[in-house]
Amino acid sequence: MIKVTKQALWSGRFDGEADSSTLRFTSSLDVDSVLAFYDAMGSLAHVRMLKEQKIIPPEDADRIINGLISIVWMMERGEFDIDDSLEDIHTNIEFRLTELIGPAGGKLHTGRSRNDQVATDLRMYLRDVILEAMIDIDALILSLLKAADEHKETIMPGFTHMQHAQPVTLAQHLLAHVFRLSRDADRFFDALDRMDSCPLGSAALAGTVYPIDRDMTAKMLGFRSPTQNSMDAVSSRDNVSETAFCASMTAIDMSSLCEELILWSSQEFGFIEMDDAYTTGSSIMPQKKNPDIPELIRGRTGNAVGSLVSLMVMMKGLPLSYNRDLQEDKGAVMDSMNTISDCADMLSKVISTMKVNKDAMLAATEKGFINATDLADYLVAKGVPFREAHGIVGEAVRYCIKNKRRLEDLTLKEFKGLSASIGNDVYDRLPVKACVERRGSYGGTSPASATAQVREAAAAIMEREERIKQEARLIESCWDDLLKEV
Amino acid sequence: MIKVTKQALWSGRFDGEADSSTLRFTSSLDVDSVLAFYDAMGSLAHVRMLKEQKIIPPEDADRIINGLISIVWMMERGEFDIDDSLEDIHTNIEFRLTELIGPAGGKLHTGRSRNDQVATDLRMYLRDVILEAMIDIDALILSLLKAADEHKETIMPGFTHMQHAQPVTLAQHLLAHVFRLSRDADRFFDALDRMDSCPLGSAALAGTVYPIDRDMTAKMLGFRSPTQNSMDAVSSRDNVSETAFCASMTAIDMSSLCEELILWSSQEFGFIEMDDAYTTGSSIMPQKKNPDIPELIRGRTGNAVGSLVSLMVMMKGLPLSYNRDLQEDKGAVMDSMNTISDCADMLSKVISTMKVNKDAMLAATEKGFINATDLADYLVAKGVPFREAHGIVGEAVRYCIKNKRRLEDLTLKEFKGLSASIGNDVYDRLPVKACVERRGSYGGTSPASATAQVREAAAAIMEREERIKQEARLIESCWDDLLKEV
Amino acid sequence: MIKVTKQALWSGRFDGEADSSTLRFTSSLDVDSVLAFYDAMGSLAHVRMLKEQKIIPPEDADRIINGLISIVWMMERGEFDIDDSLEDIHTNIEFRLTELIGPAGGKLHTGRSRNDQVATDLRMYLRDVILEAMIDIDALILSLLKAADEHKETIMPGFTHMQHAQPVTLAQHLLAHVFRLSRDADRFFDALDRMDSCPLGSAALAGTVYPIDRDMTAKMLGFRSPTQNSMDAVSSRDNVSETAFCASMTAIDMSSLCEELILWSSQEFGFIEMDDAYTTGSSIMPQKKNPDIPELIRGRTGNAVGSLVSLMVMMKGLPLSYNRDLQEDKGAVMDSMNTISDCADMLSKVISTMKVNKDAMLAATEKGFINATDLADYLVAKGVPFREAHGIVGEAVRYCIKNKRRLEDLTLKEFKGLSASIGNDVYDRLPVKACVERRGSYGGTSPASATAQVREAAAAIMEREERIKQEARLIESCWDDLLKEV
Amino acid sequence: MIKVTKQALWSGRFDGEADSSTLRFTSSLDVDSVLAFYDAMGSLAHVRMLKEQKIIPPEDADRIINGLISIVWMMERGEFDIDDSLEDIHTNIEFRLTELIGPAGGKLHTGRSRNDQVATDLRMYLRDVILEAMIDIDALILSLLKAADEHKETIMPGFTHMQHAQPVTLAQHLLAHVFRLSRDADRFFDALDRMDSCPLGSAALAGTVYPIDRDMTAKMLGFRSPTQNSMDAVSSRDNVSETAFCASMTAIDMSSLCEELILWSSQEFGFIEMDDAYTTGSSIMPQKKNPDIPELIRGRTGNAVGSLVSLMVMMKGLPLSYNRDLQEDKGAVMDSMNTISDCADMLSKVISTMKVNKDAMLAATEKGFINATDLADYLVAKGVPFREAHGIVGEAVRYCIKNKRRLEDLTLKEFKGLSASIGNDVYDRLPVKACVERRGSYGGTSPASATAQVREAAAAIMEREERIKQEARLIESCWDDLLKEV
Repeated sequence: MIKVTKQALWSGRFDGEADSSTLRFTSSLDVDSVLAFYDAMGSLAHVRMLKEQKIIPPEDADRIINGLISIVWMMERGEFDIDDSLEDIHTNIEFRLTELIGPAGGKLHTGRSRNDQVATDLRMYLRDVILEAMIDIDALILSLLKAADEHKETIMPGFTHMQHAQPVTLAQHLLAHVFRLSRDADRFFDALDRMDSCPLGSAALAGTVYPIDRDMTAKMLGFRSPTQNSMDAVSSRDNVSETAFCASMTAIDMSSLCEELILWSSQEFGFIEMDDAYTTGSSIMPQKKNPDIPELIRGRTGNAVGSLVSLMVMMKGLPLSYNRDLQEDKGAVMDSMNTISDCADMLSKVISTMKVNKDAMLAATEKGFINATDLADYLVAKGVPFREAHGIVGEAVRYCIKNKRRLEDLTLKEFKGLSASIGNDVYDRLPVKACVERRGSYGGTSPASATAQVREAAAAIMEREERIKQEARLIESCWDDLLKEV
Repeated sequence: MIKVTKQALWSGRFDGEADSSTLRFTSSLDVDSVLAFYDAMGSLAHVRMLKEQKIIPPEDADRIINGLISIVWMMERGEFDIDDSLEDIHTNIEFRLTELIGPAGGKLHTGRSRNDQVATDLRMYLRDVILEAMIDIDALILSLLKAADEHKETIMPGFTHMQHAQPVTLAQHLLAHVFRLSRDADRFFDALDRMDSCPLGSAALAGTVYPIDRDMTAKMLGFRSPTQNSMDAVSSRDNVSETAFCASMTAIDMSSLCEELILWSSQEFGFIEMDDAYTTGSSIMPQKKNPDIPELIRGRTGNAVGSLVSLMVMMKGLPLSYNRDLQEDKGAVMDSMNTISDCADMLSKVISTMKVNKDAMLAATEKGFINATDLADYLVAKGVPFREAHGIVGEAVRYCIKNKRRLEDLTLKEFKGLSASIGNDVYDRLPVKACVERRGSYGGTSPASATAQVREAAAAIMEREERIKQEARLIESCWDDLLKEV
Repeated sequence: MIKVTKQALWSGRFDGEADSSTLRFTSSLDVDSVLAFYDAMGSLAHVRMLKEQKIIPPEDADRIINGLISIVWMMERGEFDIDDSLEDIHTNIEFRLTELIGPAGGKLHTGRSRNDQVATDLRMYLRDVILEAMIDIDALILSLLKAADEHKETIMPGFTHMQHAQPVTLAQHLLAHVFRLSRDADRFFDALDRMDSCPLGSAALAGTVYPIDRDMTAKMLGFRSPTQNSMDAVSSRDNVSETAFCASMTAIDMSSLCEELILWSSQEFGFIEMDDAYTTGSSIMPQKKNPDIPELIRGRTGNAVGSLVSLMVMMKGLPLSYNRDLQEDKGAVMDSMNTISDCADMLSKVISTMKVNKDAMLAATEKGFINATDLADYLVAKGVPFREAHGIVGEAVRYCIKNKRRLEDLTLKEFKGLSASIGNDVYDRLPVKACVERRGSYGGTSPASATAQVREAAAAIMEREERIKQEARLIESCWDDLLKEV
Repeated sequence: MIKVTKQALWSGRFDGEADSSTLRFTSSLDVDSVLAFYDAMGSLAHVRMLKEQKIIPPEDADRIINGLISIVWMMERGEFDIDDSLEDIHTNIEFRLTELIGPAGGKLHTGRSRNDQVATDLRMYLRDVILEAMIDIDALILSLLKAADEHKETIMPGFTHMQHAQPVTLAQHLLAHVFRLSRDADRFFDALDRMDSCPLGSAALAGTVYPIDRDMTAKMLGFRSPTQNSMDAVSSRDNVSETAFCASMTAIDMSSLCEELILWSSQEFGFIEMDDAYTTGSSIMPQKKNPDIPELIRGRTGNAVGSLVSLMVMMKGLPLSYNRDLQEDKGAVMDSMNTISDCADMLSKVISTMKVNKDAMLAATEKGFINATDLADYLVAKGVPFREAHGIVGEAVRYCIKNKRRLEDLTLKEFKGLSASIGNDVYDRLPVKACVERRGSYGGTSPASATAQVREAAAAIMEREERIKQEARLIESCWDDLLKEV
């Protein structure tokens, strides 16, 4: 009978002892303890298959199954202590299992290896954090949608080059972020779909001589199918970098939104006031109310992009198949995904509670000749070629700047001086409300367009929510089946 | 009548003159000349719609249509000269048009802006380079598949940690790359799908007051639908960064393959010999035959990742809507996509022409106790628990190292000394051919598995090819319709 | 006699012909033509040494020297045509040389290799572009310094978290950028210093059997000394990545300055107006005056960071010594350095010509209770503990917000209601001019401090300028000596 | 008297309460607890200056000094518990101080702010970790130097393009890494030098109205001088990114060395055997001995580059002065620096204990016609122009490949057939030992050159060590002075 000793599982071939600093340096426990639950579930699926395929005796299989189930419940109760002197989470679970059920535990590792095991754990982990991130992103989108719905007639300056360009509604502005974030959420779904196959049974790199049934384990763990090539399965981490890219892109899109919240909170803009609950003060300046949350989110974009880069650098130029470099796959992506979820969550609170200063937004449209395009369009409607109309309005703007006037304040005589084509009806075109309402082209900034956009975006969220739920139900039913004692 | 002068289109509002260094600094001609064709096609769709919607007079529209068509043919014949003194390709085309057909050309820009125009051009460009990249990647995959098909029984060492682990077939090795690259190609499809909507008609940022029909222009240009929000349409470049990510991931996967080709070409491995046509020599060392192509491809991974990073840094923290920073979107992604296509193309040639040194591969399996796992599995089959079997084989390996033996050379007596469970049938298990053939689990390294994998991978390529062709046919029929003179 | 054929220099060992796509793919001419001049100068130094050391006959050496000199003059006159069918610039120069002087040209390559040659060329190139970049950065610093000197008493809001924090001078603001950019310039000097050794003579990787004098060539090319290890010399590119880092850091610092110029040009801030010569308009919105140059500079930060990343990815995990991956070192760093120089140049013009709207800056200090810290400090001076004072002022700010007042508008009675410690002298403390003048601690925002800072910064520039000139004179005198005909 | 409550220091101005998730999200305790010691020392210097300048009463100052000293000793004993409900480490220390000494503690924050405080703490932290990293890198260099010294006559193939190029010594190989790493260490010194100024007293952004003496605090904390501009001081983090770049470059250079150790440990190369203490085994393959440590170090290059990128992305486009984004500066650089130190430490152990298989190295030089350059040089010495000699040797190599011979095995008659210039003395030139010994040019691969290189490299280390010690002594004496009770 083998004694349960805490030596590493692979020490048979070695003459010397491993230096303790080696264990510390190579240990992955700081990151892979997050995988504990998934590792146990993967083992449960594996052992149930081993039993079904008669690869190990049923009585041993049953003992392993019940042992693993009790380990999962220990984890749930927070009673599964991790032993730092064991190199990774897999070893921790196997040792605990052998302590619980005796040497039969040694049969669990038949027909698999650490390499396929960790690749499987990682995919299950990614699946969960991706679903969570999508839920958090959708919560953020919902808060934006709700605000857009309320502000379909709130007029503000639309900016290009940070200059007043044309008047838009706040709804239009917020909806732009909605559609960006919606693509971010969808991108995660594609990533999930692409990694929806199960590496378990690929063993170390070449498959196994045991008559395992990989379809069965894949199905028990909620995957569509087993992976197609064993060497690819244990050595590829494009699923991790794709997830990290999705996170980076989401972070970048949030950074844009945050940039605007920060600017809009400034004394210069004064467009919004963030709720006290989501701002902070200064240790030295008593008057300060700082938009720390959007600032931190904008700053954390760096972490997300940095994590992606670290993964890509790590993978560059690695020959097949498993190399230990791959151990560095987890920290970066975990950090990315936590960042995204937390940031989306906080940002949705900020959006939901901010006060919009409609008056300031409207007042801002007075500056910058924001209705100049409408004057040009008016001229075009009167038969002036666009390029010529553009020139006339440029002239008008120069005239106004020199005389400190707004376009809408010019007299008809002044207008006639600029172009004989201008008539009294020009005054109907220049109010910003008119400008906004008339931009009714599909996707444009009119209130009617905003109503349609809100409807479309809401439908997309509901569809996504349905898919998330379906996926979650599938996973849950797998867990239920796996956790049935025998 | 407006005179065709070469001043910038927007000079009406300005008192001073632009410094000529400003024009040089802000010019995008070095990159956007690639967009010339797409820009003309976008204009053709736009003007046909303006005519249909009666926004401009039919006779003006017809003149513009025929003028643009003649410009496209000039481009085709290489006779469309770009004038450096005009800031971008759009202005070049508009000036040429006005030269050709007179002031009616000025009406083309009705109901659109540079911002939606360039966003539309870019998507058409991306669509084309993505389809091309997929074709090049599939050519590379095919060359690998063909080699795999030939080498289903070519046995070589399988590596983990760059150490001999278990014997595998060369087919299994090459198929791992096949499945990776296949995911890379699929990922491009998802990117394409997500950007399959048309920004045209979003105008500067807010849509337009003209009764344009965006569904019509979208359809004429081969897009599924128009974009949903005008501010999103002109300011978002996630399509560019997603494309650049797909390129980076492909580059990284090619870097792995290249790393192996380089190692395998070394004197130490000697597994392959690359064809003279794809190697180079040394200016000083007459004996050298260098694998420059895989080295360069491996090196260009840096460019691909760098391009992605440059795009993400550029987008970080930008407020809505269009900012001039976005001009920097094109150079990086163009460079990435060209890199990927060229590299995939060269690599497929290298693969197709390399000589495989089967003897060296087989001979290499003699080293490193590569059949040790099979001895352990043998013991398990005899009833020894896996962990104990692992220990016994570790012992055997130490014994062999000390006595400079291979496992298969041990006498039955020596084997018995290690474990009483070992019998004469152990000698059937230790030849590498047996090891490989017995790993018949799904996705494993047996020749039968390779046959199945080749079939699956080929089917995936054919499906992808069908989709590419369908997309290409759609685009071509759009171009045909747009180029019909009126 | 060897015939001058255009086959690659290394074709002796090969049976087959190189595919023409191989030449195209591996050609470095698109980037290394920039090295032409340096390559010729490196060859001149090498051949003069070969002559001095009697390694080749003096008459051959003389012929080579004069031939190379005439090639350099051809380059100067723009008459040195590059032949695309030759793989790189080195081969181009050698073929031209042999055309000019016959087979003696073949002796030039004695005792060196492409590997040390290109490493030497690259360092000479980097030295030049680094010196140029420093000159451009210093020009930018000077424009900032000049503006700072003019605006030592121009008061504006100082921001933290994009919120009004305390009043500062524009000088203080601009000087912050001065000191950042000054560190950026100094960092380039350190990079230059670290690469100031000459690889020439390291040959392919192992040095050479010829009795070359590496000190002599190093000195002739303006290097402090030869490199110490031949394998390091031909395989390391940390000089390139360090240069690219210096460029990235400069780009990031410019991006901060540009962000401010963009914000300050907005209708909301209105702090500055950029000169018409350095802004652009809109094709559709006649009123627009866009700060394109700062936007483009901010956007190009991405390119600089991307270039750095591409270099680091390229170098990761490369074994010794030269690998063809290293060919990708040049494009990225050239792009970075050109970007930095151009951006610094344009930015200095923007700064020099912008109009500062002092009134708007001063008016902005009215908002946001920017003198609140001074009220707190006043209370501390009256004996109130800082933390308590902080609380009292917080109270005062809340009171003002509710009653729409500014702190300086509160009556003494109102002040007394907040704290008995407040007396009539509080009104001396609250004007922003007083706030600014009283912050006279070293490096603080008082006008006197600005005067001192300008002096310190100017001295640093002058010192740097002196070093740059000294380096430039050294290089020039090397070129003079090398170009003397024999 | 103010009550010690745990509300945030800045809550005076706020109506509502902060959401607890805000505190959690904005808390920096997970990273800035590392700064605890530095924060206390910075406060000690500050309060001693406040006392000296009579800004606060001496009795209060003394109480604060003794309180802070007792807090430092608590930290030393591990008895300083951090309260999670307080947002950062600075607040933790101040609350503890006020608990210890009463309301006088409130006076500590006079004339400073969080912004200058954290910037100062960070520089002290960076100074320490940089010195530590340099010590670790030098330890690694020493282990390489020692191995180089032992292997000055150990002959191995020198590689270019991963092909056998010319014979070199192992010493030459290892020394290449020595000089690379030596530059890495020096680069850290430049970074240290550039950040050697003290932000304390810059206050929130604008300096302070109190008559503080910044020279005094700078000196007490071991800095050369105070920073020159208050806004630069609180908002710039180029010191962090420069440190992270130095770390990345070191990581990349270690990745090269690790790549070689991994290759050399493979069955194909067999050049070295790593000590059992620094390798690991496989859970499934009993024979495996994996070079996990170099693999992990190579993989962690990604983390270092990723951290640099995350910092650069974070800083891009930030306006002045302090923004909360900057909080994200610490995690990335801490991770980088820990990685570098740990990796250098482990790698030095690996190098010190590895066994070199000289026979395998020498045997490898038999392959690949590694002495071909020497044959060419021989021909040149006989008067054959280099380019012609190159062609002759190419011919010879082809002849050998066809006839499966080595160059040194050709008969004189065969040699004569290739070139009449070849005589019997050619046999002296072809043994690899002769090849190596004759490459005696400066920096070349001859044993004599190695001896000189070892001497130069050792001198550089000693000089660096002296500077490190000097810096360490300076810091220690500062700490001693600051920790004297009053």
